[in-house]
Amino acid sequence: MEKKRISRAVIDRLPRYYRYLGDLLEKDVVRISSKELSEKMKVTASQIRQDLNNFGGFGQQGYGYNVEYLHSEIGKILGLDKSYNLIIVGAGNLGQALANYADFERRGFFIKCIFDINPKMVGLKIRGIEVRHIDEMEEYVKMNQIDIAVLTLPKAGAPQVASNLVRWGIKGIWNFAPTDLHLPEHVIVENVHLEESLMKLSYKLSEIQESDD
Amino acid sequence: MEKKRISRAVIDRLPRYYRYLGDLLEKDVVRISSKELSEKMKVTASQIRQDLNNFGGFGQQGYGYNVEYLHSEIGKILGLDKSYNLIIVGAGNLGQALANYADFERRGFFIKCIFDINPKMVGLKIRGIEVRHIDEMEEYVKMNQIDIAVLTLPKAGAPQVASNLVRWGIKGIWNFAPTDLHLPEHVIVENVHLEESLMKLSYKLSEIQESDD
Repeated sequence: MEKKRISRAVIDRLPRYYRYLGDLLEKDVVRISSKELSEKMKVTASQIRQDLNNFGGFGQQGYGYNVEYLHSEIGKILGLDKSYNLIIVGAGNLGQALANYADFERRGFFIKCIFDINPKMVGLKIRGIEVRHIDEMEEYVKMNQIDIAVLTLPKAGAPQVASNLVRWGIKGIWNFAPTDLHLPEHVIVENVHLEESLMKLSYKLSEIQESDD
Repeated sequence: MEKKRISRAVIDRLPRYYRYLGDLLEKDVVRISSKELSEKMKVTASQIRQDLNNFGGFGQQGYGYNVEYLHSEIGKILGLDKSYNLIIVGAGNLGQALANYADFERRGFFIKCIFDINPKMVGLKIRGIEVRHIDEMEEYVKMNQIDIAVLTLPKAGAPQVASNLVRWGIKGIWNFAPTDLHLPEHVIVENVHLEESLMKLSYKLSEIQESDD
């Protein structure tokens, strides 16, 4: 496949295509037209065609898309044909919730270990995944091939932990701590700022309430 | 303050301004120039001035911004001067993690009750918040003024539960179920699709790995 620069907006839409196609696959749908897919996804059919043309098309005129093929190709574009080793830093509720989320493994994301600063958590197992003390993290990361660190620790500790992890070889950070991490360019950070998401909801709610008044 | 149409991009940035100003407040910073704020936030000073000019400015030439005032004004714009009653639907790990997150209350988001379909969960208390059976949800929502429902249940149940909640008067949905909800226009839905966030991370990781090869 030709490599070309794909816009951020297209990339942001790909996981959603992947999810919809996965739902169709589960329902044993073999093929779908861009029109049907567009109705399901509430985007225009021309948007879908344009987006997929970035990757060479995948569709045949008058036939539509082969669901299984398109799902698997988009999966490859998203890097889901590879597997990733993850650690979680912070064994609190959110860390445990993520460790319990078995669906990540189906996508190739394997949580190998959880680290926490609290000695009381050490030795706990969450869905078979061991909690170790954060003092052991350096050696663990250096000895095992860990691709992604999931940060579910309080914001005060997050920046320092993140730079340590990067120094020890981590390339990707999935950051749930409510703070921005300033890391070297080559490190990929994906933030999930829950409080900010809730604020957007309250903004929109108060906007409609004001227009109701 | 003059009401005018604010672009989505500006609104998306407001929670981040609010967070940074909150951090400055905690450090007892009284005022800050747009230049200093821009260095901290890694956006241009002119972007900051432009964004804040949407709401009438707040800054004085040569003086900068009063941190406390700006924080509080942005809070009002975000609707954080009001309070919101929330319920959580789904008392699994993620639901419990969110219920345990006391910071939401500081922002005016009060979790009043958690509902679950599993009778074994009923009666549990999470940070003092009771888990009730989902069969009691209709009466509860109708009897109490609930603004926002947080959906942390599996995707199969989410669409039906969401339309019920809307029928019972809920105006805002914070959706963690990995599915899109198709609800009436007046309902505000804010999605947190964790798996899609992780896929964006893997896309970017495989992009840099390919360019390393």
